[in-house]
Amino acid sequence: MKLLITGGGGFVGARLARALLARGTLCGRPVEQLVLTDLAPPPADLLADARVQARTGALLSQTEALREEPFDGVFHLASAVSGECEADFELGLRSNLDSTRALLDALRFNVNAGGKAARVVFSSSVAVFGPDPAVPMPKVVADDTLPAPQTSYGAQKLICEHLVADYTRKGYIDGRAARLMTVTVRPGRPNGAASSFFSGIIREPLAGVESVCPVDASVSHPVSSPSRTIDGLIKVFEASRETFNGRTALNLPALNVRVADMLEALAQVAGPKVRALVRFERDERIAGIVANWPTGASAARANKLGLMPHTEFAEIIRQYIEDCSAAPTAAQTLKGLSL
Amino acid sequence: MKLLITGGGGFVGARLARALLARGTLCGRPVEQLVLTDLAPPPADLLADARVQARTGALLSQTEALREEPFDGVFHLASAVSGECEADFELGLRSNLDSTRALLDALRFNVNAGGKAARVVFSSSVAVFGPDPAVPMPKVVADDTLPAPQTSYGAQKLICEHLVADYTRKGYIDGRAARLMTVTVRPGRPNGAASSFFSGIIREPLAGVESVCPVDASVSHPVSSPSRTIDGLIKVFEASRETFNGRTALNLPALNVRVADMLEALAQVAGPKVRALVRFERDERIAGIVANWPTGASAARANKLGLMPHTEFAEIIRQYIEDCSAAPTAAQTLKGLSL
Repeated sequence: MKLLITGGGGFVGARLARALLARGTLCGRPVEQLVLTDLAPPPADLLADARVQARTGALLSQTEALREEPFDGVFHLASAVSGECEADFELGLRSNLDSTRALLDALRFNVNAGGKAARVVFSSSVAVFGPDPAVPMPKVVADDTLPAPQTSYGAQKLICEHLVADYTRKGYIDGRAARLMTVTVRPGRPNGAASSFFSGIIREPLAGVESVCPVDASVSHPVSSPSRTIDGLIKVFEASRETFNGRTALNLPALNVRVADMLEALAQVAGPKVRALVRFERDERIAGIVANWPTGASAARANKLGLMPHTEFAEIIRQYIEDCSAAPTAAQTLKGLSL
Repeated sequence: MKLLITGGGGFVGARLARALLARGTLCGRPVEQLVLTDLAPPPADLLADARVQARTGALLSQTEALREEPFDGVFHLASAVSGECEADFELGLRSNLDSTRALLDALRFNVNAGGKAARVVFSSSVAVFGPDPAVPMPKVVADDTLPAPQTSYGAQKLICEHLVADYTRKGYIDGRAARLMTVTVRPGRPNGAASSFFSGIIREPLAGVESVCPVDASVSHPVSSPSRTIDGLIKVFEASRETFNGRTALNLPALNVRVADMLEALAQVAGPKVRALVRFERDERIAGIVANWPTGASAARANKLGLMPHTEFAEIIRQYIEDCSAAPTAAQTLKGLSL
């Protein structure tokens, strides 16, 4: 099987790549080639695997060549993040909309040339949902809640959901759009996503560093651990069309959690001194974006595929600590913990 | 006021242009310039009006120049129709998606150059709705029914709704998307729309010509007369942002009518001999497309703006006959009637 992961150098992409290489198979077939595209090269452990080929550069600059290259499956994760898209409208259109369109067209060219339609998992986002005066948003958004995006990122994700559905209907791809919940705890540095603090308020204190929470403690949000997110992407890929059920996007499972509960779990797992490293300082720009996000999500269709969220945020923190302990930079990453 | 109508040479566009010229004002301001773009030139009566400027050619070839030309208002009606888009996937993407994107970007350039955001009415379509295994379609689709397009035309219209909403949110346009119902009775020749027969089964018999109905008599569909459709577009343009209520698209009012009722109205208005010119001959391609369309629509938001549908299909037929009688080719168009 020859697979493509766009955004394969990123956090979710690299983790997905590792999971696929470790499994060795997908849909019961061996993973023989794994092409990772991203702006930056993937981590060294991935480059060291003979099955991996890394291609560095903007996806949009690579899609022309993809017209001549058949893939069995594609995980399309590459995306500019929400904060970036709000700050730079054209960047969002180019990175999220134009790149997806060009990728889908490349896959369509393969089919028109006699190839088999590639199976495609598109990572959409819970950011497609939002409140509109004409469409009040339910507290918990479901698979079939009417999306009303309040950010360019959300609008672009939703638009791409519908491109994926229509290319699928036409037989150009076998596409499935899955809405990722906010993935936390992400390692590394804060990124441009407005949701970045949902990782920061856990990651930084665990590293012994102060962290600022830009929203109120009462803010509730649907989150998912990296591992459950990866499980979701793989399960959605492996689902038959019948079990995926339709062509509209589905929600991946979420743990709906308040910031206050996240911090309480942090105190429980890592102690009150670590928790005390988080202070609240409202950032109107971020708080304004987050205020338009759903406070929770349900995922009935994903549940039917056997996908379930964590039930306690403490589990997610423990998983992050385990992941860090297994990594070479663990001492640095967890220096706030008296391990 | 300087206005642009894309698709201004088409049936709805030309009729809208006549209505605007006859009113002389829009939002209380005089209509000074009316630019009509279309693949073909507009009818002679429009060209004869000193306020009208016609620009012939694909919209996509004209958007670059529009970057330097400010408009107060735009009615964006230009579109490839549903049958064409199913037959030619690239045509649909180019004519409906790329052209809309380029038009919106031209308007955005004007704002970035210091201009005022143009007010934009985008003609979306009831074709955004459809059944999906995961999202059963209600019998009557409402403003806030979850769209699940089953044609490329419907998908492209829905995608453009969300572009219009996001460009509006960013302040690049003051956009409003209104979903047109199937406009009937259209004069002239059948076009490539799968819905073309909804006019043909009335128009052809009235002209003394046999007509074939490609779907069962039990098929129900939301339709609107040309005049109510034009009223809707103008009212949506004139609405304040508060009364339009939000940025999501609204349904224009529909008369939900069965083919059987349409033909009964035809017999009532024009006599049984005219009715007898329609015969049923199922066309699987068209019946398949229509089977995925809603059987009715509601329009609560448009109703609040004061917009109402006709209540009887006979009224729509009588309006068509009056329109034809006022036009020079009336004798030909209505030769099935013993007037």
